[in-house]
Amino acid sequence: MSGSKCRRLSGALVRPLLDSVDCVLFDCDGVIWRGDQAIPGAPQVINLLKESGKKVFFVTNNSTKTRKMYADKLAALGFHASEEEVFGTAYCSAMYLKTVCRLDGKVYLIGSPAMRQELEAVGIQQTGVGPDPVSGKQSDWANVALDPEVKAVLVGFDEHFSYMKLNRALQYLSQQGCLFVGTNRDSRLPLEGGKAVPGTGCLLQAVETAAQCQAQTVGKPNRFMYDCVASQFGLSRDRCLMVGDRLDTDIMLGSNCGLKTLLTLTGVSTVADAEAHQQSGCAERQGMVPDYYVESIADLLPALQG
Amino acid sequence: MSGSKCRRLSGALVRPLLDSVDCVLFDCDGVIWRGDQAIPGAPQVINLLKESGKKVFFVTNNSTKTRKMYADKLAALGFHASEEEVFGTAYCSAMYLKTVCRLDGKVYLIGSPAMRQELEAVGIQQTGVGPDPVSGKQSDWANVALDPEVKAVLVGFDEHFSYMKLNRALQYLSQQGCLFVGTNRDSRLPLEGGKAVPGTGCLLQAVETAAQCQAQTVGKPNRFMYDCVASQFGLSRDRCLMVGDRLDTDIMLGSNCGLKTLLTLTGVSTVADAEAHQQSGCAERQGMVPDYYVESIADLLPALQG
Repeated sequence: MSGSKCRRLSGALVRPLLDSVDCVLFDCDGVIWRGDQAIPGAPQVINLLKESGKKVFFVTNNSTKTRKMYADKLAALGFHASEEEVFGTAYCSAMYLKTVCRLDGKVYLIGSPAMRQELEAVGIQQTGVGPDPVSGKQSDWANVALDPEVKAVLVGFDEHFSYMKLNRALQYLSQQGCLFVGTNRDSRLPLEGGKAVPGTGCLLQAVETAAQCQAQTVGKPNRFMYDCVASQFGLSRDRCLMVGDRLDTDIMLGSNCGLKTLLTLTGVSTVADAEAHQQSGCAERQGMVPDYYVESIADLLPALQG
Repeated sequence: MSGSKCRRLSGALVRPLLDSVDCVLFDCDGVIWRGDQAIPGAPQVINLLKESGKKVFFVTNNSTKTRKMYADKLAALGFHASEEEVFGTAYCSAMYLKTVCRLDGKVYLIGSPAMRQELEAVGIQQTGVGPDPVSGKQSDWANVALDPEVKAVLVGFDEHFSYMKLNRALQYLSQQGCLFVGTNRDSRLPLEGGKAVPGTGCLLQAVETAAQCQAQTVGKPNRFMYDCVASQFGLSRDRCLMVGDRLDTDIMLGSNCGLKTLLTLTGVSTVADAEAHQQSGCAERQGMVPDYYVESIADLLPALQG
């Protein structure tokens, strides 16, 4: 079994794989772009896939942009894409709170203006976006003013994260029945040149430690991200390919949902990482072994052009 | 064996226990005071212990006060105590960096002005205290200005904790050989009325998640806190009693160091918590079972007065 996984996808293998699927889900950062630069060849790959009749979706754990903002960025980098094809955690968290949690109340949001927009777009009110500096002393913090309509705490990426926000989340989560949801657990956002900045996972860990309980997370590898796409577009999982640069989120999502999986080496994870999982003998880690890998999704180009 | 642990310390048991020790180490919050109020009877107990020739020390994970500030608070609440008897994590972390790590460089400090003072008192320079709001964008954060002399990151309680501080810690910790130390892992600071605010453990978890490695922690249950007292005062561990309200820090420290242990029920942990550890059959959890418990340290008063 395992011998047939983690194969380099090259030459004659590309066409049969593409023929075996109707739909391709792409992670964004490290897969189709890095920062503000498209991966060379990536726009042509996406555009040719769509011309050949494949459905293409963009599935990202990044919570700092709305679907509209993603569609604009995709267009600016030469990708043919529409808002409806984008599934980021700002949008998906709003959908999760609305459809899975059936939230009846406001959200205390540790997150971005984009998350606020996506919540409001599905009719959920929120409070919390923007700076929240500390003042007073411990007893003031414990008795901080709370919005009585808040029934959920949602933690996404927030550059204004502060002790006071952490404290406010704890006070809300100490109330009976308050929901606790996180966009994703990515511990770092990788940037060009091997640098990185702290990711949402750090903020979520801080809130979880304070609250002494775990949040439900919406992002990959939680299968909700796939379910969200599949339910709107009627996908069949055995006719889908998940393409990503992270074994613990992208490839794991594909495995969790029974999709075909392709690792691209333009981002975070390496073939050595994948092989270590494969050789571990650990059942959970097998889910992080992709079916195939490529140096870059540009490697799909010859088969699409041929 | 276990049947002789976790006994209520009352009546005829008090005097023999006190006779068996020369030294008593007290946690502070939840043991001798709560917030700004002394536990009724606690000052008399401490003062009588000292009058009877016992050495008494105050051993706290709280990093927001210098030894001097603790001595002043103790005096104001009626305790006879000197600076030299106080071992808080602001002081002990400075000692740890100086004597154990033999730090040759500056500290990036996520912490309080009190921590800065204690570092400076042992000759360690620092940077970082006070607000550090975010500005710019991701690429700016990854390239934030760093002090080239910084060789350690120290995380204690910091009401000005922010995304930018988290990021700065990550950038320092990405440098070869940078030390990573935390004052303690307490996840909450309990306040009167069952309320709580986030503790240092939350901030430390956030930094650890970003750095993808664990800090060394100085505070209880790490035995450094006891070693620090013992080395300065020539204590003998079989003649010491550790008194605290938390099983996971105070009692665990006592067990780790081979001290006698007494749980007081005026703070966080309960007898039921201790019994659950005792009955778990888990070796590590046995270290959280105290030898004795009292409702309040005031229960020691009759034996001291008699």
